[in-house]
Amino acid sequence: MATEKSEKQQPKASKPKAEPKGSERRVGPVIGIDLGGTNMQVGIVGPDDKLLARAKRKTKAEEGLNAILDRIVQAIEECRRESKVRLTDLAGLGIGAPGAVDPHEGVVLEAVNLRWNDVPLAELLSDRLGIPCFVDNDVNAAIYGENQLGAGQQSDNVLGVWVGTGIGGGLILNRKLFYGHYLTAGEIGHMILFPNNPPGSRSLEHNCSRTAVVERVQKLMRANRKSSILEMVGGDWDKVRSKTLAKAYQEGDELAIEVVDDAADMLGVAIGSIVTLLSLERVVLGGGLTEAMGQPFVDRVQKQTRRFAFPDRCKRVQVVASELEDDAGLMGAAMIARDRISG
Amino acid sequence: MATEKSEKQQPKASKPKAEPKGSERRVGPVIGIDLGGTNMQVGIVGPDDKLLARAKRKTKAEEGLNAILDRIVQAIEECRRESKVRLTDLAGLGIGAPGAVDPHEGVVLEAVNLRWNDVPLAELLSDRLGIPCFVDNDVNAAIYGENQLGAGQQSDNVLGVWVGTGIGGGLILNRKLFYGHYLTAGEIGHMILFPNNPPGSRSLEHNCSRTAVVERVQKLMRANRKSSILEMVGGDWDKVRSKTLAKAYQEGDELAIEVVDDAADMLGVAIGSIVTLLSLERVVLGGGLTEAMGQPFVDRVQKQTRRFAFPDRCKRVQVVASELEDDAGLMGAAMIARDRISG
Repeated sequence: MATEKSEKQQPKASKPKAEPKGSERRVGPVIGIDLGGTNMQVGIVGPDDKLLARAKRKTKAEEGLNAILDRIVQAIEECRRESKVRLTDLAGLGIGAPGAVDPHEGVVLEAVNLRWNDVPLAELLSDRLGIPCFVDNDVNAAIYGENQLGAGQQSDNVLGVWVGTGIGGGLILNRKLFYGHYLTAGEIGHMILFPNNPPGSRSLEHNCSRTAVVERVQKLMRANRKSSILEMVGGDWDKVRSKTLAKAYQEGDELAIEVVDDAADMLGVAIGSIVTLLSLERVVLGGGLTEAMGQPFVDRVQKQTRRFAFPDRCKRVQVVASELEDDAGLMGAAMIARDRISG
Repeated sequence: MATEKSEKQQPKASKPKAEPKGSERRVGPVIGIDLGGTNMQVGIVGPDDKLLARAKRKTKAEEGLNAILDRIVQAIEECRRESKVRLTDLAGLGIGAPGAVDPHEGVVLEAVNLRWNDVPLAELLSDRLGIPCFVDNDVNAAIYGENQLGAGQQSDNVLGVWVGTGIGGGLILNRKLFYGHYLTAGEIGHMILFPNNPPGSRSLEHNCSRTAVVERVQKLMRANRKSSILEMVGGDWDKVRSKTLAKAYQEGDELAIEVVDDAADMLGVAIGSIVTLLSLERVVLGGGLTEAMGQPFVDRVQKQTRRFAFPDRCKRVQVVASELEDDAGLMGAAMIARDRISG
């Protein structure tokens, strides 16, 4: 596969690469990290793709960069103790960060949740750990993980859509993560769904994220729409969470079904357009809202996606739920590190 | 560049490839063909990218496949006489066809305008001419031509949007034409722009093609909207063509400006979403409507594209007019043939 990657495409490690050990083509254990605005998930992944250990920490972005790096190193130590993997046995580290990332230079260009701009994360981690470190966008890492080990089934052309607080996306085209000219490809949450809506209500994220769905339910309850949700939250609509909504949805609550199904339909329209544009064979849905709503939600998105996909042959596209769920990000980050090390 | 192309990506010739002549890396003259539903444009392109000769024929799809092949061969003969290029000197042929194409096998899968299904066009032409022949989609050929020789400026990631009877698209990603899993990537005319509109009025093509724009002008004139267009067509609105519309637009006719600017704005919304998704550096606009309306139309599309592109760095995207115009398709088809031959 090495011949397929151009100089520009092939992201580089911030430190000298680990040499392959003689005829042994497999790479040693790698660290995978999913760095979120609220929590970080850290794991050590063995050469057989098994998660040997995992640790979780609060991100606490408000404490600043060094405090975050300290907590990453602590979480790695915890994983090393649990798995008995020595630091010298670790082949490298991959980390997915929320926001725009330069994977070639290992720099987080802009991460609003973390209040970061132009942070050379790969270099900083490599200085602390002495192993090659690689950075990518968090949803890129998740879809890479799914495509290697989960619902992506090693498809050539696959879109990942993570529906949570916002909506993130990642693209694998011709079997590789696609970054685009400005390295920001996959930002599907900011695609325009309703051009004629007022500002703040035009994009996919504005209409179909967990945030948007919960707000719509609250708004309709305030306008006196009846729903079992109101009872579940003891009359306090500010307490509506996606779990409440999921329970109501599964129990047949009319309002929950109307709002969630509408979001699924709108998601399907947007995904259908992307399938038309890119002739994709597979779409993987992940994120908090997808996990809470489950298979009926995914099925509905697939139905609508196929309705709008063009031409007919694209209607064979599969829309499936994430299989790795919470582990997608860290497993994918680990796979990215491993694949970059083994070139 | 050869190392960048995987086996699957690299389309194959239907006949043995021309051998490179010793140390001479340049490929001899190639034929380029733009096969449309109404007309075909045929040219011979020299190794220095110069168009040595060109010929035009009616396609006359209704006369069937063999009659079309006959006219292609006649047009090639005319070009050969004009340019004095011998058949044995021709290195190969590239042809862009309207519809879904398998460029690897050289087969036109479905071309509605030509009433073709699964036509092995590369093989049929190769049998007649005895040179390697390659087939691609017509807009793919046009954007490939623009990117090699025209407005694309050899960008890594560029979208071509051809606005005419319908709206066609082509994508160059990581410096190569992108086909996708079902080989139909780029069908942007069928992306959904207004999900809540009635069927037949939801897609980009339904709203922004020349057909849609002309129909809207006719409809508004029937509803008694005043316009200088009515005078231009002698009171017969069925005679409105894009040239009429362009004249009215350039002369400041209120109706023409309203309808054309609205189409430009809607095009810009859709292109902005695609720039967001793919982080593109450049978009080339071509086709009949773009050529008729000229630079003010292109500028307006760029303004709206930048407005909706996300994140901020993507707002640097350039939206430019085709430079090769009518020759984009045949020049691009010739470039495709040449690049595939020299592999």
